[in-house]
Amino acid sequence: MTSEPMFRKVALIGFGLIGGSIARGAKSLGLASEIVATARSPQTRERVRELGQEFGIVDQVVETNAEAAEGADLIILCIPVGACGDVAKEIAPHLKHGAIVSDVGSVKAAVVKAMAPYLPEDIHFVPAHPVAGTENSGPDSGFAELFINRWCILTPPEGTNAEATEKLAAFWRTLGANVEIMTPEHHDLVLAVTSHLPHLIAYTIVGTAEELEGVTQSEVLKFSAGGFRDFTRIAASDPTMWRDVFLTNKDAVLEMLGEFQEDLSKLTRAIRRGDGDALFDHFTRTRAIRRGIVQIGQDEAAPDFGRRHKQLGTKAE
Amino acid sequence: MTSEPMFRKVALIGFGLIGGSIARGAKSLGLASEIVATARSPQTRERVRELGQEFGIVDQVVETNAEAAEGADLIILCIPVGACGDVAKEIAPHLKHGAIVSDVGSVKAAVVKAMAPYLPEDIHFVPAHPVAGTENSGPDSGFAELFINRWCILTPPEGTNAEATEKLAAFWRTLGANVEIMTPEHHDLVLAVTSHLPHLIAYTIVGTAEELEGVTQSEVLKFSAGGFRDFTRIAASDPTMWRDVFLTNKDAVLEMLGEFQEDLSKLTRAIRRGDGDALFDHFTRTRAIRRGIVQIGQDEAAPDFGRRHKQLGTKAE
Repeated sequence: MTSEPMFRKVALIGFGLIGGSIARGAKSLGLASEIVATARSPQTRERVRELGQEFGIVDQVVETNAEAAEGADLIILCIPVGACGDVAKEIAPHLKHGAIVSDVGSVKAAVVKAMAPYLPEDIHFVPAHPVAGTENSGPDSGFAELFINRWCILTPPEGTNAEATEKLAAFWRTLGANVEIMTPEHHDLVLAVTSHLPHLIAYTIVGTAEELEGVTQSEVLKFSAGGFRDFTRIAASDPTMWRDVFLTNKDAVLEMLGEFQEDLSKLTRAIRRGDGDALFDHFTRTRAIRRGIVQIGQDEAAPDFGRRHKQLGTKAE
Repeated sequence: MTSEPMFRKVALIGFGLIGGSIARGAKSLGLASEIVATARSPQTRERVRELGQEFGIVDQVVETNAEAAEGADLIILCIPVGACGDVAKEIAPHLKHGAIVSDVGSVKAAVVKAMAPYLPEDIHFVPAHPVAGTENSGPDSGFAELFINRWCILTPPEGTNAEATEKLAAFWRTLGANVEIMTPEHHDLVLAVTSHLPHLIAYTIVGTAEELEGVTQSEVLKFSAGGFRDFTRIAASDPTMWRDVFLTNKDAVLEMLGEFQEDLSKLTRAIRRGDGDALFDHFTRTRAIRRGIVQIGQDEAAPDFGRRHKQLGTKAE
């Protein structure tokens, strides 16, 4: 790109799926003059250094969060939400006047509460949550296209500089995302139903299937195409990230769980009583939701998520 | 194909996703000299007739189940399990000596109980369940590759002719499936966990998300990539088929639901108490199950089920 980059120095603190995808996207679009990354573990830093040398997805890898933040125009914390407070405290003395500090956490109220007290007045704090991901994690799992056509939610605290918010929004839009602004509390309620509860349910059912009497684990794996395998994907998500989500969005998750339990009781009663009409009506209603998601481009129209099938006559290896 | 077809006349009673996929696979592999199909609704029969004329996936469409069964060597009921008893009664007088009668139902004990009393002694009854599918239904939804690398479970009642069982197994293997034989009761327990419970949970959570206060339906759809969208796929499955599954496999489903509820209570308690270690341990265990499923080829190794992503710089329409 020949036009002026959006930011001079971008610092990525943490380099898992999200950090690595931001780096790859921002680099390939020329959104920053310089991308500096760091990560907590020496192994990850070493791997990011290799990726930087081989594919140019970062310019520099530094040893500490403070060093990464030093002089950066945009600092994005790409770490589990439970670690955000400590890192904010650590980088605060090193932040440049007018820098934008953001994150990518799946919970927003707790992150704001943990980070805001440490950030100086002359810093623009614009928390963000790109609603995108895969079941993979680590520095190799990211890819530049991850955010395309997904939503990125910004939750700037009251009084945040509108220009800074718009600048971060423009950054995310260039990475391919749609941007929406809401309060941290509303974000946490919405995500409790569209993300946190589904993960909790998936983690539960996969655990249930793992330790049954009368059904072997081999059978669970073999016959998983009956539906179970769909749940195993999100139940393979990063354990640290998800532990922190449930610890920090407890109230909204428990509220949604209560709603879910009520609905499960209703369906269970219909099964026990043999009430076929109630089941049929419910199953017909839920079909429409799928259609809506496909219509707005939030999932594949192709059946079975577009999973590929081998050709007939060619047996699998 | 120049070699002798496996069956002379194959009758498919019902032509949804499974019936249509069998027809397409069997035709493209030359497994039958003649495939005759029928369906309950005149609209479906008309559509199958068109598909037969245009793509040659069936040779003939007839008006009644009796006519389809007449003289057939293999008759497969591809209909909701609740309808199998009545159809068995209807076709019984028309079955040819030595014919194999099978089905594709997701529940086996109830199907055996409903069908067996009507079938004459000189008929080989080999119930089957191909554990494969998509969220689509209807005569256009089938495809020849659906069964490749999936499992087909046969549950022949005691005393079933071994040659007939093997012949049906060979048919399914040629369609690409792996075949396993077990009792109807064990099948129903295994599928309760790998298929029926997951569907019940998905139907529940999608229903929950549909009628929340404080979160709009538009928000649920927009932010569904956080995990929710995965559940909507199986919650878009055919309502009639699934109503019948829950009505006919009630006991095993309720048993698995009990196990699930216990596990959900444990995780809920861990969230309420802020027990991060318990959550982390659980989330680490469930990861291994996903790896196992991918290793045995029952799901894509590609992240996110291999969902496709647009290229950067190209905004979605």
